[in-house]
Amino acid sequence: MARALGADGIIYSGDNDEKMLEGIEDVVDRWGGKFFVTYESKGDKALAMHHRKGFSIVHLTMYGIPLQKKIKEIRKKKNVLIVVGGEKVWGNVYDQADYNIAVTNQPHSEIAALTLFLHEYFKGKELEKKFKGKIKIVPQDHGKKVVNNEKE
Amino acid sequence: MARALGADGIIYSGDNDEKMLEGIEDVVDRWGGKFFVTYESKGDKALAMHHRKGFSIVHLTMYGIPLQKKIKEIRKKKNVLIVVGGEKVWGNVYDQADYNIAVTNQPHSEIAALTLFLHEYFKGKELEKKFKGKIKIVPQDHGKKVVNNEKE
Repeated sequence: MARALGADGIIYSGDNDEKMLEGIEDVVDRWGGKFFVTYESKGDKALAMHHRKGFSIVHLTMYGIPLQKKIKEIRKKKNVLIVVGGEKVWGNVYDQADYNIAVTNQPHSEIAALTLFLHEYFKGKELEKKFKGKIKIVPQDHGKKVVNNEKE
Repeated sequence: MARALGADGIIYSGDNDEKMLEGIEDVVDRWGGKFFVTYESKGDKALAMHHRKGFSIVHLTMYGIPLQKKIKEIRKKKNVLIVVGGEKVWGNVYDQADYNIAVTNQPHSEIAALTLFLHEYFKGKELEKKFKGKIKIVPQDHGKKVVNNEKE
């Protein structure tokens, strides 16, 4: 999902889920685009390292400042690392983050928060992103049409 | 999530998951807002009934027409029923739907698709929606602040 909406990659922490990793690599292989997936056992260290490299750390949490109040400021940052679900993995993410951002202060899914953050960050241009993959959908009013070049 | 982003309610089909139902009712009770949840064993019948009542049926699917090409037209419709995951439940949803809409023609989650559809439909105003609940978050730059009126 992050891939479809313009993110460059994912760093994940917590359980090292190799099936998920393979699943994402398979999607990238078939559907195209560039997208990295890496595993870091220590989320807080990965975060600190990116901080030193000049990344702005944005933690998505329902307890943060509303997205619409901060997005203009965050859009100016070139390298942004978004943290979702960080609270479950390590404790001080609220302090480590440069921005704690709420996509509504209401209960919602982390996927929804990440989706809207990317959409606002890219100003909707992510929807126009082109992918060169083995499989391609030809949009239809009704029904499905898929062009599959996998066997070529 | 749909509740936080301005939807009026959910009709769900497939497995009748009472725990989910109770979970949503609990969220509405504590966090406020109006939101209905109903179960329909036959998704296609629920769809046909809403069609007769004048609802526009929007099916979210990666095989459809890109969101950004149709959203202006759909915004003019007052009553919209959005179908997600319909393909798993019944077959002819592509034909039953007035619009088959793709939030990117790339693999992505149904939650992401629903999130972006609601965001575009409401032009982002859903993020300003106020809820009167027993629990309320006071947005913070760092950390958490919750006002809990449950015991009053």
